[in-house]
Amino acid sequence: MELPRIKVFIMDVDGVLTDGRIGYGCGSDDEIKFFNVKDGLGITLLHRCGIVTAVISGRRSLANIRRLTELKVTHVIESCKDKSTGIRELCAKLGVTPNECLYIGDDLIDLPAMRLAGISVAVGDAVPEVKANATWVMKHKGGRGAVREAAERLLKTQGLWDKATEVYYQ
Amino acid sequence: MELPRIKVFIMDVDGVLTDGRIGYGCGSDDEIKFFNVKDGLGITLLHRCGIVTAVISGRRSLANIRRLTELKVTHVIESCKDKSTGIRELCAKLGVTPNECLYIGDDLIDLPAMRLAGISVAVGDAVPEVKANATWVMKHKGGRGAVREAAERLLKTQGLWDKATEVYYQ
Amino acid sequence: MELPRIKVFIMDVDGVLTDGRIGYGCGSDDEIKFFNVKDGLGITLLHRCGIVTAVISGRRSLANIRRLTELKVTHVIESCKDKSTGIRELCAKLGVTPNECLYIGDDLIDLPAMRLAGISVAVGDAVPEVKANATWVMKHKGGRGAVREAAERLLKTQGLWDKATEVYYQ
Amino acid sequence: MELPRIKVFIMDVDGVLTDGRIGYGCGSDDEIKFFNVKDGLGITLLHRCGIVTAVISGRRSLANIRRLTELKVTHVIESCKDKSTGIRELCAKLGVTPNECLYIGDDLIDLPAMRLAGISVAVGDAVPEVKANATWVMKHKGGRGAVREAAERLLKTQGLWDKATEVYYQ
Repeated sequence: MELPRIKVFIMDVDGVLTDGRIGYGCGSDDEIKFFNVKDGLGITLLHRCGIVTAVISGRRSLANIRRLTELKVTHVIESCKDKSTGIRELCAKLGVTPNECLYIGDDLIDLPAMRLAGISVAVGDAVPEVKANATWVMKHKGGRGAVREAAERLLKTQGLWDKATEVYYQ
Repeated sequence: MELPRIKVFIMDVDGVLTDGRIGYGCGSDDEIKFFNVKDGLGITLLHRCGIVTAVISGRRSLANIRRLTELKVTHVIESCKDKSTGIRELCAKLGVTPNECLYIGDDLIDLPAMRLAGISVAVGDAVPEVKANATWVMKHKGGRGAVREAAERLLKTQGLWDKATEVYYQ
Repeated sequence: MELPRIKVFIMDVDGVLTDGRIGYGCGSDDEIKFFNVKDGLGITLLHRCGIVTAVISGRRSLANIRRLTELKVTHVIESCKDKSTGIRELCAKLGVTPNECLYIGDDLIDLPAMRLAGISVAVGDAVPEVKANATWVMKHKGGRGAVREAAERLLKTQGLWDKATEVYYQ
Repeated sequence: MELPRIKVFIMDVDGVLTDGRIGYGCGSDDEIKFFNVKDGLGITLLHRCGIVTAVISGRRSLANIRRLTELKVTHVIESCKDKSTGIRELCAKLGVTPNECLYIGDDLIDLPAMRLAGISVAVGDAVPEVKANATWVMKHKGGRGAVREAAERLLKTQGLWDKATEVYYQ
C-alpha cells in the first residue's frame, strides 16, 4: 500500500516526547517534564525539509510550552480530551487533510487521531491497542528517541534524508 | 476461588504510583516525585465505571496532594505507619468492608493492609514478601504502569472494560 | 571465615544511596538528588535492631542533609576526600573499631574505607576494582535498592531479621 | 595504527555528560540536567595526569556551567552549531592541533568534530552514524558512565592509569 505524502508531523507529549513521567513538588505550580535531545534534533531535521510539526496534548503545562518554543514547534493544541476534533481543527487551520498528517501516540486517548492520520505511529512502549492500530511501531520508547526514529523513517520514506543531514557531512 | 466485587481501589504512593525515588534539593521544602501518565489514565478509567479510588501513604508531601487532586483521588490518608488501622478507618468512612477493597503495594509496610483487602496486588518490583502475599502480581513496576495494569485487570475481571474505554472507539 | 559483629552501618551517598545522578539548574544553588524509599525502610530496620547508621561522602549538599535527617541518620561526614581518615574519625567518635563497621561504596574513592571495614559491600554497579575488594557484592544497583539489600543481608547474618520485621506480621 | 598522544579531552554535553534528558518546569528559566558522579571522578583522574578537559555544546545552560565549574572544566564553548569551527577555535586557544584532541559525542552534530579529532569516541547509545565514524565505541551510555569509560581507556592507553589512581591504594 502506498503511503500518503506527509506535510504535518503531529505529536502527543506525555509518553511520546517524554517518558510519561510528570514531576511535582519543586516549589513551583508547574510540573517538571524531561524531553530528549535526540528527539529535538529529529524535529530540526523535519523543519529543514519543510515538514510542519505540531502537538496535540490532553494536558497543559508551562514545561511543554518552553520546550516546544525552543524547538520552534509553533502549532500546539493543549487540554484536548477529544483528539479526533483536535486533529480536524489543526488540519483546517493548516489547510491540509488528516491524510497528509503523521500522528505519533502512546495511549487509548490517541486512537481517534491515529485512525484519521495518513500515517499513525506507536512509540515502543505504547499500550497494545495503540500498537495494533499503528502504521508503524517504533523500537524506541517515548522520551527515549521514538520521535527521532519516526522522523528519520518518515524522511527516508519520502526521500529527504540526504537533504536533511548533508550539513553534517560537509 | 471467586474474587469479591471491588468498590474501592486503594494505592500506596512511593514505589507504587512512583518508582520509589524521592527528590530533594530543589530550593523548596517539598520533595520531588514523578508520577506516570498511563497510571493517570488507569485511574480515569476506574472513575468512569464508578469505582472509588483512595491512597494510604506512610509519608506525606505536597507533591502527592497536587498529583492526587489533579486525578480526582479525593480519599487520601497520609503519614500512616500502621496501614491495618488506615484501611479500617478508610472503610468506615466510605461505608464498605475491607473485603470490598483492592490494595496495591510494594513493601513490608503494606502487608497488614494487603491481608485485609479483598484483592491484594504487588507491583512488579515489590519485595518478595509482598509478592508472596498478593492475589495478583503485576508485570509492570511501580511508577512504570503497575497501577494502570491493576486497573485494567480489575475492570476486565468485573466486566467493565468495554464501558471504560468505549469513548476511544467512537 | 567468621564475619565480625557489626555495630555501625556506613554508607557513601552518590552512587550508593543515589543512582549517581546529580541534578543542576533548578533555580536553586543546591543540587537535586533522588533517594529510594526501599533503602529508607532498610535503614529503619537497622535502627529497630540498635545498629547505628552513618554516612561518609566526598561531596556536600543540602539534599543529603534533608534526606538523612528524615531517616534519622545522625552521623554524617561530608566533603571527605580521604575516606581512610574519615572512617577512623567516625570510629573514634562512636567508640568502635573499623572492624565493627560495615561500609558500602561504589567507586575508587571508597577503597581505603573498604579495606578497613569489618564487612565491605559493593553496590551492583560499582566499578570493578570495588567489586573485587568487597566482602559482599549486591545484586541491586546504587539508588535502586542496594542499601536495602545490604541491610537485609546484615540483619539476617546477625540473626536480627525477625526482630526487625515482626511489626509487619502482627 | 598508532594512536596520537592526546593533550585535550573534549566532551559534548547533552547525551554524553547527560543521558539526553532536558528538564523544564521547575519555576526557573533554567533547564534541569543530571550529571553522573562516576564521570566526575573520570575527569578528576584526567586532570591528575595533566590532560586538559573541555566542552563544546550546541546548546547553552546554567546547569552546564554549574557542573563544569565544580569539575574544574574551564574551557567551555556553548551554543556551537558548527562543531568543526568549534574544535578549531578551541585548539587555537590552547595551542594544540585537533589531532592531539579526543572528542566524545553522540549525534550527527558531532560528526564534523569527530572527523578532525585524533581520537573520536561514541557513547554506547550514540546514533549509528556516529558509532560508524568513531575510533572507540563505549559500552556505557551517555550520562551513565561513558565519559568515565573513555577517560579510563585513554589513561590506560597512554600508560597513565597507575599514576591517576595510586592515591586510592596507599
